[in-house]
Amino acid sequence: MSTRTTTGPTRVRDPEGTRRKILAAALQEFSAKGIDGARVDAIAARAGVNKQLLYYYFESKAGLFRAVLRERLAERAPEAAAADRTGPSRLADLQDRLAAAPDWIRLLMWEALEHSGRSAVEQAAIRRGTLQQWIEAVEAAQADGALPADLDARQFVLSELGAVLFPLAFPQLTRLVTGRSPTSPEFLAERRAFLEEFGTLLTR
Amino acid sequence: MSTRTTTGPTRVRDPEGTRRKILAAALQEFSAKGIDGARVDAIAARAGVNKQLLYYYFESKAGLFRAVLRERLAERAPEAAAADRTGPSRLADLQDRLAAAPDWIRLLMWEALEHSGRSAVEQAAIRRGTLQQWIEAVEAAQADGALPADLDARQFVLSELGAVLFPLAFPQLTRLVTGRSPTSPEFLAERRAFLEEFGTLLTR
Repeated sequence: MSTRTTTGPTRVRDPEGTRRKILAAALQEFSAKGIDGARVDAIAARAGVNKQLLYYYFESKAGLFRAVLRERLAERAPEAAAADRTGPSRLADLQDRLAAAPDWIRLLMWEALEHSGRSAVEQAAIRRGTLQQWIEAVEAAQADGALPADLDARQFVLSELGAVLFPLAFPQLTRLVTGRSPTSPEFLAERRAFLEEFGTLLTR
Repeated sequence: MSTRTTTGPTRVRDPEGTRRKILAAALQEFSAKGIDGARVDAIAARAGVNKQLLYYYFESKAGLFRAVLRERLAERAPEAAAADRTGPSRLADLQDRLAAAPDWIRLLMWEALEHSGRSAVEQAAIRRGTLQQWIEAVEAAQADGALPADLDARQFVLSELGAVLFPLAFPQLTRLVTGRSPTSPEFLAERRAFLEEFGTLLTR
């Protein structure tokens, strides 16, 4: 049996596993309470590690949030890169991907509320890169005549993202308008059918 | 000079003015920190009243939030009722109304994050009434052939609301996609032009 007092950060047996446990706990806490509301104590307790170890790995709560965001962005990158951005099922497919990531949507909302106009966006370079691919796919479809050439491609991307993300992000508004919860199978099926038709209206 | 100890809630000289001051302070605090994060102490201090008086008028923090929401809904009702829901400028006009109400958008976001799937939506009857008028206007336009008849009217309303609200609600995503802040005059002008065109695509 090792003596506890000498077990410092540098003696952790499974540093990668410990890091993952902290990140998973942090994702849950940030998604539930936001960056401002999250407590490092609660994250450490949930991960089953001591707070010193957490600070050793991530330096600060802000550093931990950046790491969570980077990790989720990296996980989502392959799907985003492979996505069809201009075909008739593009919106329905985007809905499938986003409906499967409620914690991601909540992180984006907390970020929006806590983001001040002047502050830098976290992990801006990676995120801008993914969005740039999307914008370029729209521009290529416009050049081919598959999407209307006179629409601003950036505004178009923002609108398509919104068409899918908005009902999932505002469950209370979705319930007021449609009578259904946006996570219910009924809503998702109804919305999928609508998005297929809606997306086609823009390309006819 | 009156003795402070005998000045109870029933002796307030301008009850309506005091109520307004509390509601204005509460709107600021809820919009900045959400319902969970808002502190009744801070609201009382901002309004310049004592906490007992606040509880006398509104009973609880939840009661105060309901009153703020009811008040904002009542203020917005005349504009919403008069709005053109189906004409070519409908989206641009909706943007003008929503861009002027950033505190309202933040309240909706906090409500979304703090709303659990099973809980009732605050002031649901009033809100559903306003939305129902909108849905009926869309259905009438569909019957007249001014909007495509095969689109689900509720999903259509949800989408049009999202097309305008989404960029304003997620400033960081708007900046990543367009390079602009959604509250900047440049963004609002660019978005307005896009929304006019986008809305027309659905009606041609």
